[in-house]
Amino acid sequence: MAKLVLIRHGQSQWNLSNQFTGWVDVDLSDKGVEEAKHAGQLIKEHGLEFDYAFTSVLTRAIKTLHYALEESDQLWVPETKTWRLNERHYGALQGQNKAEAAKKWGDDQVHTWRRSYDVLPPLLSADDEGSASKDRRYANLDPKIVPGGENLKVTLERVMPLWEDEIAPKLLDGKNVIIAAHGNSLRALSKYIENISDEDIVSLEMATGEPVVYDFNDKLEVQSKVKLDK
Amino acid sequence: MAKLVLIRHGQSQWNLSNQFTGWVDVDLSDKGVEEAKHAGQLIKEHGLEFDYAFTSVLTRAIKTLHYALEESDQLWVPETKTWRLNERHYGALQGQNKAEAAKKWGDDQVHTWRRSYDVLPPLLSADDEGSASKDRRYANLDPKIVPGGENLKVTLERVMPLWEDEIAPKLLDGKNVIIAAHGNSLRALSKYIENISDEDIVSLEMATGEPVVYDFNDKLEVQSKVKLDK
Repeated sequence: MAKLVLIRHGQSQWNLSNQFTGWVDVDLSDKGVEEAKHAGQLIKEHGLEFDYAFTSVLTRAIKTLHYALEESDQLWVPETKTWRLNERHYGALQGQNKAEAAKKWGDDQVHTWRRSYDVLPPLLSADDEGSASKDRRYANLDPKIVPGGENLKVTLERVMPLWEDEIAPKLLDGKNVIIAAHGNSLRALSKYIENISDEDIVSLEMATGEPVVYDFNDKLEVQSKVKLDK
Repeated sequence: MAKLVLIRHGQSQWNLSNQFTGWVDVDLSDKGVEEAKHAGQLIKEHGLEFDYAFTSVLTRAIKTLHYALEESDQLWVPETKTWRLNERHYGALQGQNKAEAAKKWGDDQVHTWRRSYDVLPPLLSADDEGSASKDRRYANLDPKIVPGGENLKVTLERVMPLWEDEIAPKLLDGKNVIIAAHGNSLRALSKYIENISDEDIVSLEMATGEPVVYDFNDKLEVQSKVKLDK
């Protein structure tokens, strides 16, 4: 029986300043670093040993993974960094203060962008400042799939190939996997794993730096889900 | 023209206490952390951008890589952790104080173990305490190739498949590669890259945390070798 551990990255600088982050590569705050280290200590206390690690190509998730692995004495575990685990791309909202966005577009519109399953945010074009098309880390992606903005549905669709091709085969092979990623890429994964409806998934909250442990049987059905206490 | 950057990990706890380290997973000292960060700042100042990163499965080299990548704003670069870049395995000498070893076996013998190209140290058997055979990170290795002690020659022989299969193809494809590893695994690589003799290689010293930059032509011949100033 294999285990999968999900960790949402610790608090970031822009969680603090209440800005839409998305694919902007914002660092962890000091509190975020402490959360990530604490997650690693919980992992160690619970004796969780990993065979493979996955994370996004964004610094805050990568550092969360590294702290979690280091604190649990397994920094050597093979790791894959992939854009498929990136945070939902927040389009033209990226960098904006959430309160100011609410003033500009109205509370209802901003709430819809944040919490609907399939409404897209205002999009960035490839030429816009801050477009992922200009970032070297996405240079190997087919330009047609570099997003200018995503909803949770699109986020789930681009996470799934990673699940199908890389993660599920390892779990089926009895290997333990850790994924350090973001609120929405992990929400998308949880939706698939737990078969949560489009309506219910938008209210699922994952606490920063709190490891969630799934146990699977050999049909990849969830046998248990445990949040490691902070 | 591709670039290869080699970095020897920053000072470790056991560099400080003058113990034989080898495959023992000793952490960086505070000074070692600073050296690794400084290496990253030099990399950034020189505008070095990487496509791939390689390191060993030992914490001190992995952390050196992570600090170097983070400080140069490229923590997202894909990384491979492999035992083939591990420090030379120091056999039964691992953990011993170097001065005490010299008292026990004599200066000449210890000097021979440290500086000869092809003399093996006293070996650990698979059952000995501290054997790599008992370490989960080597569980996927054919037990017949888990070393009980290595000289520089053997170290070079196990580094070469990584060069041939993973690193050389990427350099030939014009990709820039960074390797964060250890005094002897990097000495072995340098011997091959620069075609240094068995006699001369044992006196080649690499400073901790000092990036060495090779430029290659399309035949993988060295065009220049530059040490980034501390």
